[in-house]
Amino acid sequence: MAVRAAVAGASGYAGGELLRLLLAHPEVQIGALTGNSNAGQRLGALQPHLLPLADRVLEETTAEVLTGHDVVFLALPHGQSAAVAEQLGPDVLVIDMGADFRLADAADWERFYGSAHAGTWPYGLAELPGARAVLEGTKRVAVPGCYPTAASLALFPAYAAGLAEAEAVIVAASGTSGAGKAPKPHLLGSEVMGSMSPYGVGGVHRHTPEMVQNLSAAAGERVSVSFTPTLAPMPRGILATCSAKARDGVTGESLRAAYEKAFADEPFVHLLPEGQWPATASVYGSNAVQVQVAYDESAGRIIAISAIDNLTKGTAGGAVQSMNLALGLDETTGLSTIGVAP
Amino acid sequence: MAVRAAVAGASGYAGGELLRLLLAHPEVQIGALTGNSNAGQRLGALQPHLLPLADRVLEETTAEVLTGHDVVFLALPHGQSAAVAEQLGPDVLVIDMGADFRLADAADWERFYGSAHAGTWPYGLAELPGARAVLEGTKRVAVPGCYPTAASLALFPAYAAGLAEAEAVIVAASGTSGAGKAPKPHLLGSEVMGSMSPYGVGGVHRHTPEMVQNLSAAAGERVSVSFTPTLAPMPRGILATCSAKARDGVTGESLRAAYEKAFADEPFVHLLPEGQWPATASVYGSNAVQVQVAYDESAGRIIAISAIDNLTKGTAGGAVQSMNLALGLDETTGLSTIGVAP
Amino acid sequence: MAVRAAVAGASGYAGGELLRLLLAHPEVQIGALTGNSNAGQRLGALQPHLLPLADRVLEETTAEVLTGHDVVFLALPHGQSAAVAEQLGPDVLVIDMGADFRLADAADWERFYGSAHAGTWPYGLAELPGARAVLEGTKRVAVPGCYPTAASLALFPAYAAGLAEAEAVIVAASGTSGAGKAPKPHLLGSEVMGSMSPYGVGGVHRHTPEMVQNLSAAAGERVSVSFTPTLAPMPRGILATCSAKARDGVTGESLRAAYEKAFADEPFVHLLPEGQWPATASVYGSNAVQVQVAYDESAGRIIAISAIDNLTKGTAGGAVQSMNLALGLDETTGLSTIGVAP
Amino acid sequence: MAVRAAVAGASGYAGGELLRLLLAHPEVQIGALTGNSNAGQRLGALQPHLLPLADRVLEETTAEVLTGHDVVFLALPHGQSAAVAEQLGPDVLVIDMGADFRLADAADWERFYGSAHAGTWPYGLAELPGARAVLEGTKRVAVPGCYPTAASLALFPAYAAGLAEAEAVIVAASGTSGAGKAPKPHLLGSEVMGSMSPYGVGGVHRHTPEMVQNLSAAAGERVSVSFTPTLAPMPRGILATCSAKARDGVTGESLRAAYEKAFADEPFVHLLPEGQWPATASVYGSNAVQVQVAYDESAGRIIAISAIDNLTKGTAGGAVQSMNLALGLDETTGLSTIGVAP
Repeated sequence: MAVRAAVAGASGYAGGELLRLLLAHPEVQIGALTGNSNAGQRLGALQPHLLPLADRVLEETTAEVLTGHDVVFLALPHGQSAAVAEQLGPDVLVIDMGADFRLADAADWERFYGSAHAGTWPYGLAELPGARAVLEGTKRVAVPGCYPTAASLALFPAYAAGLAEAEAVIVAASGTSGAGKAPKPHLLGSEVMGSMSPYGVGGVHRHTPEMVQNLSAAAGERVSVSFTPTLAPMPRGILATCSAKARDGVTGESLRAAYEKAFADEPFVHLLPEGQWPATASVYGSNAVQVQVAYDESAGRIIAISAIDNLTKGTAGGAVQSMNLALGLDETTGLSTIGVAP
Repeated sequence: MAVRAAVAGASGYAGGELLRLLLAHPEVQIGALTGNSNAGQRLGALQPHLLPLADRVLEETTAEVLTGHDVVFLALPHGQSAAVAEQLGPDVLVIDMGADFRLADAADWERFYGSAHAGTWPYGLAELPGARAVLEGTKRVAVPGCYPTAASLALFPAYAAGLAEAEAVIVAASGTSGAGKAPKPHLLGSEVMGSMSPYGVGGVHRHTPEMVQNLSAAAGERVSVSFTPTLAPMPRGILATCSAKARDGVTGESLRAAYEKAFADEPFVHLLPEGQWPATASVYGSNAVQVQVAYDESAGRIIAISAIDNLTKGTAGGAVQSMNLALGLDETTGLSTIGVAP
Repeated sequence: MAVRAAVAGASGYAGGELLRLLLAHPEVQIGALTGNSNAGQRLGALQPHLLPLADRVLEETTAEVLTGHDVVFLALPHGQSAAVAEQLGPDVLVIDMGADFRLADAADWERFYGSAHAGTWPYGLAELPGARAVLEGTKRVAVPGCYPTAASLALFPAYAAGLAEAEAVIVAASGTSGAGKAPKPHLLGSEVMGSMSPYGVGGVHRHTPEMVQNLSAAAGERVSVSFTPTLAPMPRGILATCSAKARDGVTGESLRAAYEKAFADEPFVHLLPEGQWPATASVYGSNAVQVQVAYDESAGRIIAISAIDNLTKGTAGGAVQSMNLALGLDETTGLSTIGVAP
Repeated sequence: MAVRAAVAGASGYAGGELLRLLLAHPEVQIGALTGNSNAGQRLGALQPHLLPLADRVLEETTAEVLTGHDVVFLALPHGQSAAVAEQLGPDVLVIDMGADFRLADAADWERFYGSAHAGTWPYGLAELPGARAVLEGTKRVAVPGCYPTAASLALFPAYAAGLAEAEAVIVAASGTSGAGKAPKPHLLGSEVMGSMSPYGVGGVHRHTPEMVQNLSAAAGERVSVSFTPTLAPMPRGILATCSAKARDGVTGESLRAAYEKAFADEPFVHLLPEGQWPATASVYGSNAVQVQVAYDESAGRIIAISAIDNLTKGTAGGAVQSMNLALGLDETTGLSTIGVAP
């Protein structure tokens, strides 16, 4: 079986990473590639690292171009996915790498995105409790945000095991590719090299309600999230430092046991041996997640830290993992747990 | 008046930064420079950026060599400062850039450093409440740690104003110079470029009790601190993301007012206009501190973020600032608030 | 005497670096600051590292605004300087940090810049033979390009001493600030971090004729230059690796002697001890130049390498150095030879 | 068929990269892993990015341990390979990733390495004229140095076509992984981030005679090489800027034609479309080579530039490519031409 896949938005970072992974996927044949402002250009000029596709030319993002594929990946600006998905019909697997269908709460959507809520699709974070059952065979997938992927994987075991109070504090550092390819002054190399800076501070970052949604589901109660994203001087990677007050009776052993249980059979999550901590370099370009957890007795807090590649597990790799589940393929097909380091 | 200054430990990063600042200090004449394993070497080979001192040769760190100066800066490994200071006598200004005399609590010292407590010297963070009175005219200064400098300046106004609960969560990213110049595999450029990683997680980092000491003093009650340091791919800079639950009745306005009051007359602290956030690049090579604060209403937390240069304000600049106070000079002499950017 | 200085183009990297230096210059008082598209904005939002000027507001670049100063620095796009200079009159010192008045040969200008030649002003590279005599007391200065500064200082002693054949090969790596602050996709941090890439290859870079001009003047004959610039993953710095075939009879000793003679009294040029090589980190943020030279006997070539900070010695520091000479101040006033390292 | 492969020297950067590639090679089964000072340690502690091998323990590098494999890769310090290879016998494929067997000229070896010449093995740069015939079926391979790989691929077509004078000038920038994993002060992240610096200047770098050997073979006459390596602030990648005087009658067209002919059927070399230049980011983690060439008419020189990943095509990828040829597998098996970007 060859799965024919189209990519809408092939000129950006998410689209480029997706193509890198699809080129290595043994079951996928790459079909139409689209990009609006870049339609008509050679991919070799836009994504010079994708040598096998250098001579492909981008088309316009239209239903005609995207029709006739088994899977259509959407890497489009917010608010554009619903219309495209509708035209493709219910039998095509549509995987939205944007935010449009991630949130279940319409009020949250409207508050953080300022537009009408398009709906809610199966959420493509397979490692969350119960997620695989929803993803197998689905025709619609909402790929999670990169920060929510990192933070949810770090903290959900503590919440699922009832070990943490319902107030999480998350500080995450992201590589600059998370901010996209549109040129803006503060994203210039001259500005970001040698600098760490926060943004979206104080509960206003759009990934906050998505974290609340995931952690609340794991906890069975509403978990509040204080989330501070920071921009780090590196192209890729997210390091999420997450903490919450420990419930009474938590010990280092009970904490470790909860994480071992949560990740025992996970092919992409590496709960590190005690004493070893995650590093984004170790998961560079891979779909792997490094997780470590500790109990800080003096502060009474659980500290859980995860490292992912924001473009791979945090975006395109998560999308391929969900595609595999949706199509009934082995979940790990075409995905690597080996980072490109040093 | 020319202040004659000696530097013990001139070959490391702290010593090099101190010399960079002293060379620009109009009242200081640089005297003896020492370094143990590097004694006998030209400074030009060890600190090639210090052109005016290129032909100076390092001497052994002995009382004989250090005697005869008005000020002696100690940038020595832990545990060596007390013996040197004693030999220099009570009339020489001794400024310890190490940890030996920072902590007031001997039990804290013993738990975190594993040796006998040497004592407590006046703490050289001039911006803390009451600090200047202790530093003026003193003959002994304990220069604060780099992380405690960043975190204490970010949070003490909230504690001093009674706005924050007594549990702080601090996640800080530091440039690699904070880890020193001794070559270790995990500090190689190949390892750190492109990577973020935590270390000393779970309350074990030695700067934790120093933060507890400073914030507790500001709050008038014991403040617990959950501190996670991370290594960032940049040579210099600390970004400290600090938060605490807000006490009842806190508003964005009361918070802002507390910070404006705390920093109104501070020559080195720049409380940024609302909406602008600190960036380590902006304070690169300077003694300036950028601070911003916000109230996250949905999470009920105060978020205070500071950026410093770990080698300047976080080490050598803080040392010079304290020297100025101790000697009765203008506190800002020889120190800049202008970063080297981009 | 307070020299009143205006800066046209204060929002870019060259303008920002100039202001950083002028703030530390004991004889200069900063007057009008202009910027076209950014007129009306606070400097604190555009140049957050210049704390003392944070509340200054940019004005429009007009003759009215710029009138009434002793010195006017122009950091404007190509082709705009002549008109402004004319309106300021012959008695104001005008220092052009752009390219308009660097080239003596109008045909060269037209070929490389595609517009009419505006003229030729005294060339502000004080270290070149005979340059100081022209700069002292002048009312017009053309600040050299950053690459020509680095390459000319590396090679002119070999040419002035008649040691090198008239064909130079120059490969230089520059930090990204050399490409300016206008946001372009290939200058994004995501693109430049972790990457080296050439541009303007094959004799087409606009700094080529300027190098030919300088080296030919030193040699007394036309020197051809093969120049390849490359973009390096760092904010600042130029490392210029320059070579030429050695003339018959050249030895390592004669080469070294020529360089020692050329730089014997130069306050900013550090001819390194034999065996030590330049590094851009050592001159970061300073006006210093590190130079080293070697004779490769097996290839029969002279290899001369220089390191500068492209924004300081390569642009704004060179401008201040020329201003000092033009105004009769000590040439080194307000300029440092101490790099910010590590 | 499963090819059983052992890796001697699995804890360094070359060994780690080789394992990354072998894990993705469909025909290879990874056997013994050795490392001297690290014997007894878990690979997960030394190479945390190689998740599937995290629990493997390194053994001592002995003939007993290495016996019983189809292929043995040697990533050992200079001078140790000959003894190991001899013990393994003539029927085992031995691939030396060190320098011991690269040079044909014993005098060159002795001059640059200061020890007795061990011999000469088939040189594993398949793209050189005639190389594949020697590699097919061989039991011994000398993997080229990283710089010679980059420089030879950039320039051999010009020499093979008789277009270039026999004096090449090569300036190359390398990521820090090329300097290895042994911790040295000048390789600390604090030192290399933000800095470009040369080393081994003046014909003394050990890769120089290897370049002379390759280019001379292509030219049919002795080619002298002036080679300057520089250390760039990035973990991986080599950008080689190479030039030589053009012979009479060379045109841009004849030059382009020579390169198109040389690389027409090469699976790993991407001769870029005219106007597009190599970037190391584009080949990050891949076995691809980007090449571009131009004729600088005013300087009369051919400029050829290549980009490779020093650890992949420059070391471990080149080793796997040669293994494939030696074993009669498709040359591209297990190797990718897709970079990990941005």
